[in-house]
Amino acid sequence: MKNILIIGAGRSSSSLIKYLLDKSSTENLHITIGDVSEENALSKINGHKNASAIKLDVFKEEERIAAIKKADIVISMLPARFHIEVAKDCVTYSKHMVTASYISEEMKALDAQVKSKGLVFMNEIGLDPGIDHMSAMQVIDRIKDDSGKMLLFESFCGGLVAPESDTNLWNYKFTWNPRNVVLAGQGGASMFIQEGTYKYIPYHKLFRRTEFLTINGSGKFEAYANRDSLKYRSIYGLEDIETMYRGTVRKVGFSRAWNVFVQLGMTDDSYTIEDSENMSYRDFTNLFLAYSPSDSVELKFRSYLKIDQDDIMWDKFLELDIFNPEKKVNLKNATPAQILQKILMDSWTLEKEDKDMIVMHHIFGYEKDGGKHQVESSMIIKGDDQTYTAMAKTVGLPVAMAALRILNGDITTPGVQLPINKEVYEPILKELEEYGIIFKEKDVPFLGYNPESVKG
Amino acid sequence: MKNILIIGAGRSSSSLIKYLLDKSSTENLHITIGDVSEENALSKINGHKNASAIKLDVFKEEERIAAIKKADIVISMLPARFHIEVAKDCVTYSKHMVTASYISEEMKALDAQVKSKGLVFMNEIGLDPGIDHMSAMQVIDRIKDDSGKMLLFESFCGGLVAPESDTNLWNYKFTWNPRNVVLAGQGGASMFIQEGTYKYIPYHKLFRRTEFLTINGSGKFEAYANRDSLKYRSIYGLEDIETMYRGTVRKVGFSRAWNVFVQLGMTDDSYTIEDSENMSYRDFTNLFLAYSPSDSVELKFRSYLKIDQDDIMWDKFLELDIFNPEKKVNLKNATPAQILQKILMDSWTLEKEDKDMIVMHHIFGYEKDGGKHQVESSMIIKGDDQTYTAMAKTVGLPVAMAALRILNGDITTPGVQLPINKEVYEPILKELEEYGIIFKEKDVPFLGYNPESVKG
Repeated sequence: MKNILIIGAGRSSSSLIKYLLDKSSTENLHITIGDVSEENALSKINGHKNASAIKLDVFKEEERIAAIKKADIVISMLPARFHIEVAKDCVTYSKHMVTASYISEEMKALDAQVKSKGLVFMNEIGLDPGIDHMSAMQVIDRIKDDSGKMLLFESFCGGLVAPESDTNLWNYKFTWNPRNVVLAGQGGASMFIQEGTYKYIPYHKLFRRTEFLTINGSGKFEAYANRDSLKYRSIYGLEDIETMYRGTVRKVGFSRAWNVFVQLGMTDDSYTIEDSENMSYRDFTNLFLAYSPSDSVELKFRSYLKIDQDDIMWDKFLELDIFNPEKKVNLKNATPAQILQKILMDSWTLEKEDKDMIVMHHIFGYEKDGGKHQVESSMIIKGDDQTYTAMAKTVGLPVAMAALRILNGDITTPGVQLPINKEVYEPILKELEEYGIIFKEKDVPFLGYNPESVKG
Repeated sequence: MKNILIIGAGRSSSSLIKYLLDKSSTENLHITIGDVSEENALSKINGHKNASAIKLDVFKEEERIAAIKKADIVISMLPARFHIEVAKDCVTYSKHMVTASYISEEMKALDAQVKSKGLVFMNEIGLDPGIDHMSAMQVIDRIKDDSGKMLLFESFCGGLVAPESDTNLWNYKFTWNPRNVVLAGQGGASMFIQEGTYKYIPYHKLFRRTEFLTINGSGKFEAYANRDSLKYRSIYGLEDIETMYRGTVRKVGFSRAWNVFVQLGMTDDSYTIEDSENMSYRDFTNLFLAYSPSDSVELKFRSYLKIDQDDIMWDKFLELDIFNPEKKVNLKNATPAQILQKILMDSWTLEKEDKDMIVMHHIFGYEKDGGKHQVESSMIIKGDDQTYTAMAKTVGLPVAMAALRILNGDITTPGVQLPINKEVYEPILKELEEYGIIFKEKDVPFLGYNPESVKG
């Protein structure tokens, strides 16, 4: 009997737990779900004979250690900042560990100890980070093995609403943590390299510097640049690549309208608004517009942001009801970002029948035998329902598959790592196909950015 | 014999030192100038019999304490973050202290100790903060004493170049720390209140939300909002005021052009540019523009920032030579802000004969006897030369005058304070007039912002 401890039974754990429960009899597994809410943990196991639910507060050391000691492997689905205490215990009690989060500096610092104990600490094995790494490395390694020289890598990913549930003017609903959506892109300039030229975009221009992409069979999307694309050069072993760009996918038109919130200052999370509690949505909007004794908030908004009379974007703001003088903010000492999130949640919360959709799209450019080539690889997957969402599947399934392979001794290379090695990504990408997470590749003519190699 | 220790013999200390040396014989003063550079300190005393120069590194505790022990009062002209160690020693050895800097939280925390020892720690007694507080409080107190009710307070201040030295298209030169000019407005939204309506402006809109002001006899200027005008309500005892706005003055047209640097992201000081050392000014500019294999940096710049063919603003950028492919940045691991500062210093450094100019302008609106009234108070002063600049005079003279009055027992109220009390501002403002620092008042019709009291 192998014991798996899963910490955190949030929305993103549903597919992970289902996968492991489904395999529990054949693989001889016992799964323990620990959550601050025992009720929450209980609901996830739904009386399954190979599972148990416990109340687990990771900040209570005794509780945490007791649970970890009983496990053979620990899967932490907590928010990233909470992993480290669990990780230290896993080192102490020699347990493998799996997370879907970026490797923090603290986590990286455990590498030598983890290696010396022969443990596998697999991180960044969800969707993004996770499936992006694996699906990219599979093609990159193949190109390199085939004597190709990588020239360009662009990668796009986004959590969207499925077309059949796409019922608002923004073509967007919250399929993941709304706070992260409101704060997206903040914290510093976005940086990447195109044809050997570094590019830096400040936050306040990010949503006006989008690129379009067309995904075979699914139409046109747009993407804005992620924070730091440059670091992926060393992670993916592409130190000398001329173009490296990673972006977040939205439906066309979203970013141009979102930019209005950025320009106004409504996404700012660094200060609180005086008397926010008693403000109407209209008062909130007016905070960011110049004072006028007579002009309407609507006209000031249009004039300041240069929104033409016949601009379809205008209706997006009307739809959100941000000019309503009756609806109250009802949040004490709130930041602009918190108030904006509340306003958006009125309109962008998934309805019971709504389905989400994940889009991932890679572009690889390379040189081989004197010619330049380009291949595109795309994955689109929809959620089944509000429990087994596309997000839950794409985050949870690779985590579960990695955990099982570590337990079974199929993944053995020790250390704090991410899934960029063939022993990890090959079998997992193959198994993910059984669950509908399938990348379709297509050779296209090499476009790059610079057909004439003129620098600008 | 009364001993004054002045720590920091930088450019801003010249008028301060001259004032005290000129008074040293009649007032029986000995002035000690301590600076990390003894040579610098020596040059300031220029062999004066009532002065001595010492090498003083405030981070060397023994040196610092030895110098402070010998003084009756300590004037710290160090950058604000370095005051606190000096202040603690002043408490320990019971010395008065004067600075021209904002009261930090650490400084404020010393208040009880300072009071219990009967010491005066006078801060914010330079120009801005300093003369602004004093000249504002003088009028505010008069209006209140005269049974007026304050409705509106707006205050503007700027360090500019004198008209006779105004020789570039920006109508601006560095008359003070260039780094502060490049970073101005960063660190959070600007906040103020107009006719009872709160207003918040994010940094990336700050330079497009300027207000014009006309100063009697000196023409039209523009101003952008300072960080936090709201806190001055409690400092000035104007808790219920409807309009409170503080701004920084520039010549008309400066902010619209400066906004271009902000939009591009060139004022960002939070990350370093890869390979900045070997970049040309043109390469630097191109970092912030979209990649193109063929379009020129000039056209991309114009198109991105929507600068029309015949916009005079364009020439401002040509004047700065930011499209030059030959001039090298020559700064290793530099931030965008550091590189921009270097480029600007090529063009905006004062020539030997150049003079600076300080502009300060207050607007007071109040209600009295059922009528609404408005009074404006303005001060404009030019520098004598590159040593006795307007900045050095307006920062240094009030510091010197306060120090002497504390020594002579004319200012006695103990505590960590700023000059908002009549016992401080009355005599100092009066004496400043002898040095040409004169406020001219003018009654004007009440304008306010909202003649119809319609909120918007």
